[in-house]
Amino acid sequence: MIPLTLSSPSLTRLVLFTSRYSHTPFLRNFNSLPLINRKLPYNKPPFGVRCHASSSSSSSFTAKSSKEIRKTQTKVVVDEKLTSIRRLFSNPGVGIDAYIIPSQDAHQSEFIAECYARRAYISGFTGSAGTAIVTKDKAALWTDGRYFLQAEKQLNSSWSLMRAGNPGVPTASEWIADVLAPGGRVGIDPFLFSADAAEELKEVIAKKNHELVYLYNVNLVDEIWKDSRPKPPSKQIRIHDLKYAGVDVASKLLTLRNQIMDAGASAIVISMLDEIAWVLNLRGSDVPHSPVMYAYLIVEVDQAHLFVDNSKVTEEVKDHLKNAGIEIRPYDSILQEIDSLAARGAQLLMDPSSLNVAIISTYKSACERYTRNSESEERANLKFTDSSSGYIANPSGIYMQSPISWAKAIKNDAELQGMKNSHLRLLEFRSLQDGFMDTSFDTISGSGANGAIIHYKPEPESCSRVDPKKLFLLDSGAQYVDGTTDITRTVHFSEPSAREKECFTRVLQGHIALDQAVFPEGTPGFVLDGFARSSLWKIGLDYRHGTGHGVGAALNVHEGPQSISYRYGNMTPLQNGMIVSNEPGYYEDHAFGIRIENLLHVRDAETPNRFGGVTYLGFEKLTFFPIQTKMVDVSLLSDTEIDWLNSYHEEVWEKVSPLLEGSSTQQWLWNNTRPLAKP
Amino acid sequence: MIPLTLSSPSLTRLVLFTSRYSHTPFLRNFNSLPLINRKLPYNKPPFGVRCHASSSSSSSFTAKSSKEIRKTQTKVVVDEKLTSIRRLFSNPGVGIDAYIIPSQDAHQSEFIAECYARRAYISGFTGSAGTAIVTKDKAALWTDGRYFLQAEKQLNSSWSLMRAGNPGVPTASEWIADVLAPGGRVGIDPFLFSADAAEELKEVIAKKNHELVYLYNVNLVDEIWKDSRPKPPSKQIRIHDLKYAGVDVASKLLTLRNQIMDAGASAIVISMLDEIAWVLNLRGSDVPHSPVMYAYLIVEVDQAHLFVDNSKVTEEVKDHLKNAGIEIRPYDSILQEIDSLAARGAQLLMDPSSLNVAIISTYKSACERYTRNSESEERANLKFTDSSSGYIANPSGIYMQSPISWAKAIKNDAELQGMKNSHLRLLEFRSLQDGFMDTSFDTISGSGANGAIIHYKPEPESCSRVDPKKLFLLDSGAQYVDGTTDITRTVHFSEPSAREKECFTRVLQGHIALDQAVFPEGTPGFVLDGFARSSLWKIGLDYRHGTGHGVGAALNVHEGPQSISYRYGNMTPLQNGMIVSNEPGYYEDHAFGIRIENLLHVRDAETPNRFGGVTYLGFEKLTFFPIQTKMVDVSLLSDTEIDWLNSYHEEVWEKVSPLLEGSSTQQWLWNNTRPLAKP
Repeated sequence: MIPLTLSSPSLTRLVLFTSRYSHTPFLRNFNSLPLINRKLPYNKPPFGVRCHASSSSSSSFTAKSSKEIRKTQTKVVVDEKLTSIRRLFSNPGVGIDAYIIPSQDAHQSEFIAECYARRAYISGFTGSAGTAIVTKDKAALWTDGRYFLQAEKQLNSSWSLMRAGNPGVPTASEWIADVLAPGGRVGIDPFLFSADAAEELKEVIAKKNHELVYLYNVNLVDEIWKDSRPKPPSKQIRIHDLKYAGVDVASKLLTLRNQIMDAGASAIVISMLDEIAWVLNLRGSDVPHSPVMYAYLIVEVDQAHLFVDNSKVTEEVKDHLKNAGIEIRPYDSILQEIDSLAARGAQLLMDPSSLNVAIISTYKSACERYTRNSESEERANLKFTDSSSGYIANPSGIYMQSPISWAKAIKNDAELQGMKNSHLRLLEFRSLQDGFMDTSFDTISGSGANGAIIHYKPEPESCSRVDPKKLFLLDSGAQYVDGTTDITRTVHFSEPSAREKECFTRVLQGHIALDQAVFPEGTPGFVLDGFARSSLWKIGLDYRHGTGHGVGAALNVHEGPQSISYRYGNMTPLQNGMIVSNEPGYYEDHAFGIRIENLLHVRDAETPNRFGGVTYLGFEKLTFFPIQTKMVDVSLLSDTEIDWLNSYHEEVWEKVSPLLEGSSTQQWLWNNTRPLAKP
Repeated sequence: MIPLTLSSPSLTRLVLFTSRYSHTPFLRNFNSLPLINRKLPYNKPPFGVRCHASSSSSSSFTAKSSKEIRKTQTKVVVDEKLTSIRRLFSNPGVGIDAYIIPSQDAHQSEFIAECYARRAYISGFTGSAGTAIVTKDKAALWTDGRYFLQAEKQLNSSWSLMRAGNPGVPTASEWIADVLAPGGRVGIDPFLFSADAAEELKEVIAKKNHELVYLYNVNLVDEIWKDSRPKPPSKQIRIHDLKYAGVDVASKLLTLRNQIMDAGASAIVISMLDEIAWVLNLRGSDVPHSPVMYAYLIVEVDQAHLFVDNSKVTEEVKDHLKNAGIEIRPYDSILQEIDSLAARGAQLLMDPSSLNVAIISTYKSACERYTRNSESEERANLKFTDSSSGYIANPSGIYMQSPISWAKAIKNDAELQGMKNSHLRLLEFRSLQDGFMDTSFDTISGSGANGAIIHYKPEPESCSRVDPKKLFLLDSGAQYVDGTTDITRTVHFSEPSAREKECFTRVLQGHIALDQAVFPEGTPGFVLDGFARSSLWKIGLDYRHGTGHGVGAALNVHEGPQSISYRYGNMTPLQNGMIVSNEPGYYEDHAFGIRIENLLHVRDAETPNRFGGVTYLGFEKLTFFPIQTKMVDVSLLSDTEIDWLNSYHEEVWEKVSPLLEGSSTQQWLWNNTRPLAKP
């Protein structure tokens, strides 16, 4: 699966707050924007006018509404939902002029439970990425290029579609700052914004004298959704067996507590669902594709609390948690606990890029109250953060990237073994295999022109039949009890054109170049991104998505902190034990799409030299499935590249054929792993 | 010439202020530090402790003195210069506890006139990069790995050598903050520090309650240097002919004035000597290797002033300047003019990374005085800068990268033609050719182990004879009236070893990979850096310098803003018309050094596609000189790489042979451009 929807927070930040390059290591979801945006991370204005106040970008904008819709629907629809939500604006304790509804849940999850799909409910637009804003007289929805057509169909005429990334289209925060009369109050549900995102939003609207209002006690969409709102997920949590997890919870907590103390903190607050699942060796079924459960986790030096709906916790899980010294608290009591931690003088370690502003803001206010009420002696124990993090010096709190994000990214031996094993189960036979739990994302399969839609997911009403005369792209992943898979192949069922073969071959050359790369430890993934594009670039082709994303072990199919991307802000070095995808592609509009994806394990390369005394790293393939040689223009390949393909196919045959039953399948694999002759 | 000493300001900043990765686009001079530092730009601590105040890095340090010297020189030398300079510390108007002497002149030049070599005078250390600090009882000198041996020899026992980049060695600013008693006064000559560098220094020492003191009126080293100080350079300025410059001064000023106005400023202050020479189509002889003259230039919307020593200005140059509407002022009157501009309410455009803090600080103070004394009406005309530039909101001044740095980097047709012509003059015959002015840097030639010293410059007392059994590296450049050259070749006069051939071949593969790269417009140079290393990385080898630097047209051999380097902070995209060097290398300690360098012109690549509607760029070679095929292990090369080498040699023969006189030289060239057979 391509690194497009790796995490929704970033897209929200992009759509909401900035049309420029950001240094956040989690900037993703950028890919399918028009190339004019794709170029933004590269371009530096020759004239650094950003330093000059008079060049402010927040002048007036022309908000383009969805004209196509207006043509087909000549009557302006009276939108009952909008009427209802606007009525709430003037309620006591609310008092706002606009309300922002993002895609997120409270945990910045990539896939969310239905009951949290508030933006889809209020707007009717069901795409995975988008931000809705409702003012007293306007309603607008921002989404990116992947979803323009879908949004045009799904939004009614009360809504303006804001095509994020198109020239002249303001970001959501610029727009809201501009359309409100000065002194406007912009409401948000503070659980649905990371602290970083809220801070950015606040700054932009403050320039036009608007105030950001946190509505802690009520989500306005939930208020009007009422009975038709789906129930929160309640499936039972299961224990992730130690033989797959590799390290027990006690050891993970010990490491984490040492990291907490090293950072000068006394506790950590974790809201990322995959981090909680990883630390506790638990798995859930609350959201599609990701085996996680809704929860918060607070680990103190001498105790730990899991905030989760009790009904999901089996007796077995209760014992498992009790053995690890973890107490269960109601999911909804998180803010109370944060307040009480502050009152006890706890120094919390928090990641403002993932933790919601409800938590961080509650903690800050409580600390201030506590500081005011306490003696100066106690005051001396509080630490001050420095302003380089973008945070204003605060009486308390240590703001940094979650240490679990790193620990989780570096797989242990058991996790690696599980990842390897799960990749040897041939995808067609997935649901019949032992240990199959779920797909790791909606299968993306596109024939012909649909393959050129980067995130195409066939729907009964719009899909094509697989046309044997066209290229067929299949991107598919599975969740097994021991690992997570993600693979893309592009095949042709009859005769590919010379153009299709040339493009496929150049994508393959990029895939091989990255697969074969060796690099010194400390190298960030973006250094290798160009290796995968170089062959396409030579004929003026490119693809608008990153080349690789991290993958969880029996966890999220997209995980950080590493990536291999042209978004150069992510300085995370690739490290021994990480898993990344290798998936260059090429998409010819209205014609075909090509992508070749394997998962790779980053590991020490046994180089004959170690210049500078450092370790050199390379990749080990996890994915073993034929690459269609019919698609290859052999004349473009070097001998080394032909050798790569032939030895890969030999390995596929050797690893997979013993696991296959049935002579026809074996015959198919044999036919598809025959070596190419050198021209 | 490798991108090591591209500009001295950055090394000063590195040595003085930070041992960590900086985002300045001009971070250079980083290369020959030990690999532990080389790795810094890659590494991101998994734990962002920077946000946590208690992890301050400025605890106590063990300053390692130069033990070797102490062993050989058992008596502690009484250093008269140190005694004299310390005596000045308590003078009226001085009153300091320490004095910092950097390598710089007032213009952040790479090569400086002898009279400004104050750090070399006070310390005895003559290397190109270093910072000296003298306190009342200590004297310490920082330099990087290139110069450890030389500094050990040159410093007397009163000095401690601080090996910048070695583990545990503090930066100069950390050290000074630590050794002074709280409330210390640290003196500097504000002409010798860029505003950015001074700001960084100030911040570090402020943490320990020390104050940075600008001594405007006296340079303490000059005070003790007195009569033995070399006279300032006084060679005459010459006009750079329009046929080489391509664009006349009036047109350049017109463009510049539009840029000034676009930025909301009313004038620009320029101190970079190559920028002044470029804008004015003038050349000088004040410093070695760079054809520039000491001067400042202030361009206002309706007038312009050149601050330069009148004795260098011929009648012809006077007319040339007068025609362009430029008045001449004394070099030393720059601060007076800055003050008077502030009094007139001029809004100055200034680049704080290159402009010295004497100028910027004078302007700021004058603006404050002016603001205090003026009516609120006048106040309203002043613009405020934003704090994202690292500058605190200031009543005036627009701080941004100099627009000239960009204009100069993009060569016009005449400049390109001059660069091409100057590259067809074979280096052995340089001084005999028409138009030869100077070398563009000290020729670096190293035989055997000396080749492994990245910046080796033979000195009569220490150089080896060229040993025909060893590899010989020659890096040489010339200043012609129409262009600047820079080339490196590595040759063997008898039989290279298999190891030497393998390393040479992998360097060559990197050279070819970069030369052949095609990439979309907007790509920063660092994206291509890995292309040149990939082949070395595969066997665990690497080199500790960048791959490419910009080159001026009949100007500095090192110029920005672009670079091709593993220092990933420089987001400057490569653009049509830029010139860069392509010089991967490999250096085996105590054995041999290899580097292959051509200059390349960035230009549109005629790709059959233009995905995303953007232009794709590639390189055109400027350098035509044989690459020794004896050094190539053909079995490592792909067919494409062999084709590259053969067609390059064919081109060398075709372009250069018609210019050669004498059949033996022609025969030599013929022999050295014969094609390699494919194995």
